[in-house]
Amino acid sequence: MTGGTNPTPSDHQQGTLLTGGVVTLAGGVGAAKLLTGLVRVHPPRDQLAVVNTADDTVLHGLHVSPDLDTVIYTLAGAVNPETGWGLAGETWQAMEALDRYGGITWFRLGDRDLATHLYRTHRLGQGADLASVTGEIATAWGLELAVVPVTNDTIRTRITTVDEGEIDFQDYFVRRRHNVTVTGVRVAGLESAHPAPGLIEALTRATRIIIAPSNPIVSIAPVLGVPGVREAVAARREAVMAVSPIVNGAALKGPADRLMLELGHECSVVGVARLYRDVAATLVIDEADAHLAPDVEASGMNCVVTHTVMNGPEEATALARVVLGQAGRGRA
Amino acid sequence: MTGGTNPTPSDHQQGTLLTGGVVTLAGGVGAAKLLTGLVRVHPPRDQLAVVNTADDTVLHGLHVSPDLDTVIYTLAGAVNPETGWGLAGETWQAMEALDRYGGITWFRLGDRDLATHLYRTHRLGQGADLASVTGEIATAWGLELAVVPVTNDTIRTRITTVDEGEIDFQDYFVRRRHNVTVTGVRVAGLESAHPAPGLIEALTRATRIIIAPSNPIVSIAPVLGVPGVREAVAARREAVMAVSPIVNGAALKGPADRLMLELGHECSVVGVARLYRDVAATLVIDEADAHLAPDVEASGMNCVVTHTVMNGPEEATALARVVLGQAGRGRA
Repeated sequence: MTGGTNPTPSDHQQGTLLTGGVVTLAGGVGAAKLLTGLVRVHPPRDQLAVVNTADDTVLHGLHVSPDLDTVIYTLAGAVNPETGWGLAGETWQAMEALDRYGGITWFRLGDRDLATHLYRTHRLGQGADLASVTGEIATAWGLELAVVPVTNDTIRTRITTVDEGEIDFQDYFVRRRHNVTVTGVRVAGLESAHPAPGLIEALTRATRIIIAPSNPIVSIAPVLGVPGVREAVAARREAVMAVSPIVNGAALKGPADRLMLELGHECSVVGVARLYRDVAATLVIDEADAHLAPDVEASGMNCVVTHTVMNGPEEATALARVVLGQAGRGRA
Repeated sequence: MTGGTNPTPSDHQQGTLLTGGVVTLAGGVGAAKLLTGLVRVHPPRDQLAVVNTADDTVLHGLHVSPDLDTVIYTLAGAVNPETGWGLAGETWQAMEALDRYGGITWFRLGDRDLATHLYRTHRLGQGADLASVTGEIATAWGLELAVVPVTNDTIRTRITTVDEGEIDFQDYFVRRRHNVTVTGVRVAGLESAHPAPGLIEALTRATRIIIAPSNPIVSIAPVLGVPGVREAVAARREAVMAVSPIVNGAALKGPADRLMLELGHECSVVGVARLYRDVAATLVIDEADAHLAPDVEASGMNCVVTHTVMNGPEEATALARVVLGQAGRGRA
């Protein structure tokens, strides 16, 4: 890393943003995996993860931030490796007991995971902002990389379905397992949201901005959509490297592929390039899509071909080296 | 039981009040024990428990109703027999995980108990009133006796302490283990609270009203203090039987004895009689206090002497027979 004004450890606090270094725009599982690689190849104290909160929800009165928790649990080495979310070794006494009442159990909150939501809700109720609380939670898990929600304001993805009209994101994503036909996506609250304190400055001064291999429609678009963020990222376009979440025409996880198609995008690395070309100079695509590299470049982005599927820490680390420019680049 | 208009089972629903039968004014553990006896000797569908909510609290954003839960868990046979509150066989994963964040763990919420608070908070958030939600919870536990909060409105006991001024009830009761000097007790919200729907009618038509052996200051006084309740109970004074929570000058559980003394009451069955004589015709006292029966009567109440300490279901049942007038009464 060059050009960053790296803070000394004593300067660094969770919840405060850096004035240099690496900034990653993040959704959930895919972003969390890449971040585990990034912290292995670049000092975590010189990094910031900016996380989507448009899929946050209030359940049972508790403020649940799925993407923030996935990023934090994963970086803490505490995530459930089977699912990519939730805590390893979790117990489910509360959910089982909730069944007695016919309560909402389709969104599974483990007993230990509940503590995170209890704490977050308590602190928000005290008047703390989400960025501060997120910093406290990340610190409690021993994270050195800073984690912030993209905004302290409430933004919520709403999904318009053919059969049921507009529904909440988690209703779509978890309850219906994204197995419905979508005709539209909007993010309520986005136009009046403010970027997290210091976020615009961090983007302005970052030596590298990474768009993680997250869902472009429901994870990255809300992050870029907070007023000021897209412009700040676009102003640094040459320093921005996006990783395609689409490999061989399909999403590795979740509904990105289906959503892209239903909303009129080409479901390929070329479709991803068209979504990101205004904000990112370079798209990292998987070797499986090497033959599409010319089309990516024709659409206006530089293209890096590498192995992007992260099945373990080694692959995450190798991909991190690529996105940080520490590995050889090459056109296919 | 005579004179009650007993509903048939099909008429009866949790959350709806009876138009006859036995009404018990209840706090937590002591009341719950007596109720286990009452449902053994009188049809539970002909009974209503009216429960204090002035020690309800919001923790981590969750609405916690300690007395309601103690009554319901106890009647369901699910209460922790060691403590008299909480669930038997409980696990504590959420509280242990909350320690990581330095969250509030002095008020222990077990994993399965949490489900009750999650459900209650969810339903209140949907706009349901506390009486309706309480009925749903009681029904889920299979209770036939109707359980209602004394009011759907928010009432909260505040404790004035010598050292720290006014504090919340649970701060006093749980966090400080009521080990502080109290100079005053008030119930915020009481003057504008309304009795639970149907409560006044239930009191008016009850064949027997029982004041459970609960704390007169912080459990029964808030129940009687909801506007209209004291008057409705006093109007039925001849049908009202109170059980003294003070035995041999001490409370069996909790701070009733210390509170009575600090607030200027005599800490004895005679002190209890002076608190209840305007609303209840009869006070049931323990054999240990038999020598004070004349003083109780001199203070204006009939006095029944019996074994009032309930260490198990047999003793609760025997006491229930006495308060229902199904056992011989006698002066000491």
